[in-house]
Amino acid sequence: MNFFGEKWTFTSFGESHGKAIGGVLDGVPAGLHINLDLVRSEILRRSGKQAVGTSPRAKNEADEVEWLSGVMDGVTLGTPIAFIIRNTDIRPEDYEWMKNHYRPGHADYTYQVKYGIRDWRGGGRASARETASRVVAGAIAKQQLEKQGITIQAQVIQVGLETRSECFESLLAATQKAGDSIGGIVQCIITGVKAGIGEPIFDKLQSHLAAAMLSINGCKGFEYGTGFDMSKHGSDLYAHSEIPCPSSGGIEGGITNGLPISFRCAFKPASSITQCYNGRHDACIALRALPIVEAMASLVIINFLQTDNN
Amino acid sequence: MNFFGEKWTFTSFGESHGKAIGGVLDGVPAGLHINLDLVRSEILRRSGKQAVGTSPRAKNEADEVEWLSGVMDGVTLGTPIAFIIRNTDIRPEDYEWMKNHYRPGHADYTYQVKYGIRDWRGGGRASARETASRVVAGAIAKQQLEKQGITIQAQVIQVGLETRSECFESLLAATQKAGDSIGGIVQCIITGVKAGIGEPIFDKLQSHLAAAMLSINGCKGFEYGTGFDMSKHGSDLYAHSEIPCPSSGGIEGGITNGLPISFRCAFKPASSITQCYNGRHDACIALRALPIVEAMASLVIINFLQTDNN
Amino acid sequence: MNFFGEKWTFTSFGESHGKAIGGVLDGVPAGLHINLDLVRSEILRRSGKQAVGTSPRAKNEADEVEWLSGVMDGVTLGTPIAFIIRNTDIRPEDYEWMKNHYRPGHADYTYQVKYGIRDWRGGGRASARETASRVVAGAIAKQQLEKQGITIQAQVIQVGLETRSECFESLLAATQKAGDSIGGIVQCIITGVKAGIGEPIFDKLQSHLAAAMLSINGCKGFEYGTGFDMSKHGSDLYAHSEIPCPSSGGIEGGITNGLPISFRCAFKPASSITQCYNGRHDACIALRALPIVEAMASLVIINFLQTDNN
Amino acid sequence: MNFFGEKWTFTSFGESHGKAIGGVLDGVPAGLHINLDLVRSEILRRSGKQAVGTSPRAKNEADEVEWLSGVMDGVTLGTPIAFIIRNTDIRPEDYEWMKNHYRPGHADYTYQVKYGIRDWRGGGRASARETASRVVAGAIAKQQLEKQGITIQAQVIQVGLETRSECFESLLAATQKAGDSIGGIVQCIITGVKAGIGEPIFDKLQSHLAAAMLSINGCKGFEYGTGFDMSKHGSDLYAHSEIPCPSSGGIEGGITNGLPISFRCAFKPASSITQCYNGRHDACIALRALPIVEAMASLVIINFLQTDNN
Repeated sequence: MNFFGEKWTFTSFGESHGKAIGGVLDGVPAGLHINLDLVRSEILRRSGKQAVGTSPRAKNEADEVEWLSGVMDGVTLGTPIAFIIRNTDIRPEDYEWMKNHYRPGHADYTYQVKYGIRDWRGGGRASARETASRVVAGAIAKQQLEKQGITIQAQVIQVGLETRSECFESLLAATQKAGDSIGGIVQCIITGVKAGIGEPIFDKLQSHLAAAMLSINGCKGFEYGTGFDMSKHGSDLYAHSEIPCPSSGGIEGGITNGLPISFRCAFKPASSITQCYNGRHDACIALRALPIVEAMASLVIINFLQTDNN
Repeated sequence: MNFFGEKWTFTSFGESHGKAIGGVLDGVPAGLHINLDLVRSEILRRSGKQAVGTSPRAKNEADEVEWLSGVMDGVTLGTPIAFIIRNTDIRPEDYEWMKNHYRPGHADYTYQVKYGIRDWRGGGRASARETASRVVAGAIAKQQLEKQGITIQAQVIQVGLETRSECFESLLAATQKAGDSIGGIVQCIITGVKAGIGEPIFDKLQSHLAAAMLSINGCKGFEYGTGFDMSKHGSDLYAHSEIPCPSSGGIEGGITNGLPISFRCAFKPASSITQCYNGRHDACIALRALPIVEAMASLVIINFLQTDNN
Repeated sequence: MNFFGEKWTFTSFGESHGKAIGGVLDGVPAGLHINLDLVRSEILRRSGKQAVGTSPRAKNEADEVEWLSGVMDGVTLGTPIAFIIRNTDIRPEDYEWMKNHYRPGHADYTYQVKYGIRDWRGGGRASARETASRVVAGAIAKQQLEKQGITIQAQVIQVGLETRSECFESLLAATQKAGDSIGGIVQCIITGVKAGIGEPIFDKLQSHLAAAMLSINGCKGFEYGTGFDMSKHGSDLYAHSEIPCPSSGGIEGGITNGLPISFRCAFKPASSITQCYNGRHDACIALRALPIVEAMASLVIINFLQTDNN
Repeated sequence: MNFFGEKWTFTSFGESHGKAIGGVLDGVPAGLHINLDLVRSEILRRSGKQAVGTSPRAKNEADEVEWLSGVMDGVTLGTPIAFIIRNTDIRPEDYEWMKNHYRPGHADYTYQVKYGIRDWRGGGRASARETASRVVAGAIAKQQLEKQGITIQAQVIQVGLETRSECFESLLAATQKAGDSIGGIVQCIITGVKAGIGEPIFDKLQSHLAAAMLSINGCKGFEYGTGFDMSKHGSDLYAHSEIPCPSSGGIEGGITNGLPISFRCAFKPASSITQCYNGRHDACIALRALPIVEAMASLVIINFLQTDNN
């Protein structure tokens, strides 16, 4: 289904080449001031207008947000905040061939099997364009978190096999020139969350963060703390008896321990490559994923804070 | 909160050293035959009685399941299936010191901060003993999946830095002898799930699998398909235009593509090490995690199948 | 919160005098044909353009539905169906006085206390205008039910103390002329639902119907079967041993028994009366409630059918 | 499904003549003192041991609650509170005939159609015995509400057509002697809930109260405030411009206005009558419904308070 979160519940809708995409953010307390410029700047970050390795369509998307409800004079009413972003720069002629064609690494085939029908125009609902709605909702959450002293910051720490950031740009340029794509790893650090936030058993904070990250197009893995690094023994990690534990990634037993929360997400090489198809493609989707990772992390954290304030 | 799943809803309860742990499995259709022996064998697998590197308490746990409701003459009634496992082998004297002590790498500190109170006896609710209830619920799901031709099988593919399984036993024995612990990676393969199962956007199959796995004690990472491996370009993965895509891990756009579903989970070295505390400790929790990984995967899959049958 | 239903999940948004009201209907299966004319005719019924005793604003509302997503060429995609209705005929000058005034029998006071802020323009979110979105969603559900042979029909069976329908019109005209308002009782009959639909215990069909009806503005009571009629003994009702039981209202133990489902809702006299305020008021809200009652009943029934088809 | 409530989530399980009934109450904050004697006294009220017109089985039920988890030394841990009540006084021989027989006015037929199987022993899951679990959970909620100055009190205000309480006892005695049954109306008054509690639109307080009441066995109607009384005009109710409105029943726009909350529930004549069957039957189920009505009302109110404290 298309909603996320138990307290700040976000419902997303819209196809890539339909009339509009948009969302409804419910459960936002009344009386919060919304800074629409901050929302716009997150949308701009996602569009990647300045970045190397971003698809030209993304750069052209105007992405004007129309606010329909829930906010009066810039202040939340406690009622659902609905917004839409009209789909403009639509070029169905670029996608006509997709009508009877499944692209490898895309959801074309699985949507067709599941639904027996699909909006083939540019990937329809499965297009990464849907994430623009998430960025709007997340930006509202993020600015409320910032008022509470919580920062959420994602960065690309690896592109392909390259881990030194000064090498990223040339690698990306070469990849794009070759009409190819490449994977990347995003790290996200959250500071300012006090100890005691999260739920034990099934609703552990890491479970919700992982689910949120793996819901982003192209994300193939999530790890926090020691993650997949198997080079340490228990004696390396716990023998110094530090409370809270530095290797924890900020979460123990599903609950924050007051240290910064730190996790990493793996993004696969973009499925659309110019070697196969004409069109407008990203060389490395990890780049544009940054505001989306931050948006989803913001929604996760604000939901847990809401719950734990009881 | 303590429930899992939207259709087959599992509610777990109980502290490690309270009267009992147990669970309620609701939403199970009427008329299913339950094989209690298969449930027992899964419980036995989790107890690790035969395994190297398992804590002696686990081996002594009788873990007799008492079925309270929902089943009549071995057939489900469509009503909630409730069961309990009494806590026997309880030795509070082993844990008395924990009353005023937080163990590193455990949830003692975070529970205390969150709740202001905790059942300190053996970790209370945060103890891995809670997973015995999950294994019971998962075993019911798993046997129904098997009737539909679906198999779910987990295995340890890495212990520490060692990836050749013939070396695991000696490494584990040495680790246990040293009173130390070590991490491991579990791979789980699910076969027989037809294409078209899953949900797009926020409830992608991989999101639910990741959340389920990261809810298991000690799990620090989840990946599927290409995961964290950054050695490939898009041209390696998609240029052959195979539908469905072999590097997908069986899921595209959140929905199964008919290939086997394959994912991996990282487990950290156990936090309790004999170097620090007396007591009964596992050298490598990845080993005992196998039936738990399978149980949680079974619950995820059966919930999606239920939803998609509409 | 602002969503309704577990399978066909309807999220409603919008203030009476904001930019738009609207909704998102998620969980609708793919491949259904939507008849937009039937949706329009339900909207028209709610506006009460032909009826005696309806507020002039209602008659002027254009209520053009703009469909944003989820439908392509009149066929559902299985993705969220989002729609908006722009608020036109807005006359804030009629409502300026409400800014610092609470109307008796309205939600002005309670919203102010709950949120500390409210959209005072025409009742904002609490306005009955919100129900137009429900009628759109319900009309989609209703037409799918009709394809399955299920009919849902509401009628006014009592106005004030008058139970003979031929007397309603003159009573309503007199009430409106006096600038007064009057209560009414609506009966709804649902035919064609097979036996076995519903859930026992907390999610009984009557529980969901009651919750749905009492969520309609002005509804103060719900009854089914024998309801509040206390004139019968058990020997009157059950001694003939009919299975299913004719006095049941079509539901026994929370589950349909195959007889027509029959329930009644009480609507209070409208709170806005011309004796107190200028403006545009309904004499009897039970009249315009008919398509809303049917819409909500349709959403309840289709949700239970979805669940029970598993 | 078998759970109730979003914050204090209560899961109920058990068949009338199975091993046990019971429940799990999750979401209860840590650190609350539980008075087990108060729970016992509610259980005793429900058993109706002193009352005229109660079935002998009810009087014999020992109903000893065994607490399994979530409470340590009488204080809640913040973890799920699980409890069971063993089914004793079981006489399957009284019910053997039910195996192939549907009783009129009962759920025997509808359960059989829905599930294709049923626990025929004494009504199984559909038996009113299930409500004992609700009374336990509700008693925990009720005592926490009382600490906040909130009282919840139900009383029978009508038996058959009789509204003067001094006449109830003789009417009940005569009904029971005749082997017959009779309906009744229960009124419940809740005091001490501050203004601003509830949710607008679909989760109005009255919607949740109605759903809760109609989930009680034998309840056929719910009304609050003016309810089904159609004798008043708007000019009678609102012309005095009182804020909040006295005819409101304590709720306006789905949200409390600070006046006492007042509602009424209609209970049908018990379906089991001695004229038809041997066995142990209630003459008027409204009597024993009082603690159940209070229990369910307590769960509704505490859930809304939890939500609104955000």
